[in-house]
Amino acid sequence: MQVVWSAHQMKHAGTRFVRAGQFAPSPEVPERAEFILKAVGARGHTVVSPKDLGLAPILAAHDADFVAFLQTAHATWTSFAGIDAIAMPNVHPRGPHARRPAGPVGLLGWYTGDMACEITADTWTAVYDSAQAAANAARWTAERRETTYALCRPPGHHAGHDRAMGFCYLNNAAIAAEELRRSFARVAILDVDVHHGNGTQDMFYDRGDVFFASIHGDPSHYYPFFWGYPDQTGTGAGAGATLNVPFPAGSGDGPFLDALAVALDGIGRFAPQALVLSLGVDASIHDPHGRHAVSDGGFRRMAERVAALKLPTVIVQEGGYASAELGTIVADIIDILA
Amino acid sequence: MQVVWSAHQMKHAGTRFVRAGQFAPSPEVPERAEFILKAVGARGHTVVSPKDLGLAPILAAHDADFVAFLQTAHATWTSFAGIDAIAMPNVHPRGPHARRPAGPVGLLGWYTGDMACEITADTWTAVYDSAQAAANAARWTAERRETTYALCRPPGHHAGHDRAMGFCYLNNAAIAAEELRRSFARVAILDVDVHHGNGTQDMFYDRGDVFFASIHGDPSHYYPFFWGYPDQTGTGAGAGATLNVPFPAGSGDGPFLDALAVALDGIGRFAPQALVLSLGVDASIHDPHGRHAVSDGGFRRMAERVAALKLPTVIVQEGGYASAELGTIVADIIDILA
Repeated sequence: MQVVWSAHQMKHAGTRFVRAGQFAPSPEVPERAEFILKAVGARGHTVVSPKDLGLAPILAAHDADFVAFLQTAHATWTSFAGIDAIAMPNVHPRGPHARRPAGPVGLLGWYTGDMACEITADTWTAVYDSAQAAANAARWTAERRETTYALCRPPGHHAGHDRAMGFCYLNNAAIAAEELRRSFARVAILDVDVHHGNGTQDMFYDRGDVFFASIHGDPSHYYPFFWGYPDQTGTGAGAGATLNVPFPAGSGDGPFLDALAVALDGIGRFAPQALVLSLGVDASIHDPHGRHAVSDGGFRRMAERVAALKLPTVIVQEGGYASAELGTIVADIIDILA
Repeated sequence: MQVVWSAHQMKHAGTRFVRAGQFAPSPEVPERAEFILKAVGARGHTVVSPKDLGLAPILAAHDADFVAFLQTAHATWTSFAGIDAIAMPNVHPRGPHARRPAGPVGLLGWYTGDMACEITADTWTAVYDSAQAAANAARWTAERRETTYALCRPPGHHAGHDRAMGFCYLNNAAIAAEELRRSFARVAILDVDVHHGNGTQDMFYDRGDVFFASIHGDPSHYYPFFWGYPDQTGTGAGAGATLNVPFPAGSGDGPFLDALAVALDGIGRFAPQALVLSLGVDASIHDPHGRHAVSDGGFRRMAERVAALKLPTVIVQEGGYASAELGTIVADIIDILA
């Protein structure tokens, strides 16, 4: 399978985020991509660099002012707070009638949803190429009706139209879906990351042309907390085109694959012509942060069932944190979907 | 003048907040109240303890689930994160279609707007008595048509109907205004704190019976950033009953008193029967955090003009950080309004 990846994606390395009232080291480290790259390379998949498609694929999914903010935020912040200052927000527009402000502290809060989106000098470079990987993979899939893998890192599924969140800045899955929509009238996104893909949900919540299905840990006690509930099903033209299937905390293969069956049933009824697979593998029992128990075999069963859809598919990497098993799990999935 | 104050209000002492991407010591320290208490005592004002009026005055202004959360948040958080864990949020429900979650991390983000609302074991005790001080002062003012001072600390004007924010947990000014409304058909709130009183604005934004006027530093580059703009004027029955008069960063007496004149003109046209003065003195040139330059004489001019309204007034303490001059500035204002 063609694997799209740019070495620039390694350049973003956030130093920390806030967890349980303390700063903690960010788990979304560049080494995640190294594990995956090594494993998929060893299986003989072809790794190619993305062509620069410019801002157009990004602006098909994101607000232009938000994109301009991401490009300038680090320079603005360090000129305000000091050259070594860490760009993290401290106040968010919680409540009605909020207005976008002008200054750096307010803007950082306006365009982020949590304390897990540090913006470094190289964040834009990395997230731009991560988005280019998704757009290139989607274009390849659309042109050749062939499944392709975008090794996206930083990930994307928590990022909304105008909001970075949860280590995500640009929504690579949404960018891929919009690119597919240029060739296919009906596109589905299946998100199997252990965290609900709230950014993707938001972006297509009122759309009838892109179906969004997510299986994930019960958000009532699990990030992103505020979204991913079964009765969040879409609105307007998108009514019924969002499908959330949470599984209980700590779940292993049984609940994971049961949830997958419900999601695939919904996708089947929607009858899409192409698929985006938001591939997080942090439900793995080996994951250092996911707190769930899906086996390597459970992920292979997942991949077999997705392959059975026989749809041109763009696989977009989401979460899955650094462990010895990370590369193997992803490479097994790529092998099955190839 | 009668000064209402409870020693329990000293019990809340947040250790830190986030500023410019770093933890910093909280400036909203108990010593603020000591400075003020000593100065108003020395001028011969009578300090009385609030009677316990129960939850009713608080629930007249705040959401019952939010109030229950404040009462239980520290116990819930420490049983989840450890007995010494500092209860600070890390993710907020930025974006549409958000749902209140069940777990402690999500709930803390749901009910707070920023990283300046640490909840300690004694936070509820302190904010409950701060609210009781406001409610008692308002009841005294309503019964005797006499101006009263609630030495509220923790402060309140950033707290919304269901949201703590900016060192504020319960909105003492709103609680006082609701208490006054039991006796007066038309009540005005004048907020002279250097930061916009966004919580108070939100709570009365669609109400025609309570006029809210605020003078404050231009929020485009200044906390709370997202509110306090002149074209935020109220909605529905409250259309025209919100008046925001920002002044430029660094302003001294001239712009401060010019803004006051505009606010007082609006209040005069509304023709209230009673007033709440949200008294922050952090526009002072002596304030260690306010970054503005109002002189002690400027505050006395302010007080003279408010006194000239000849309205039964509840003075509610908001901001103003610890400095040698803090007590004198407040005591001068109390003397003039007595």
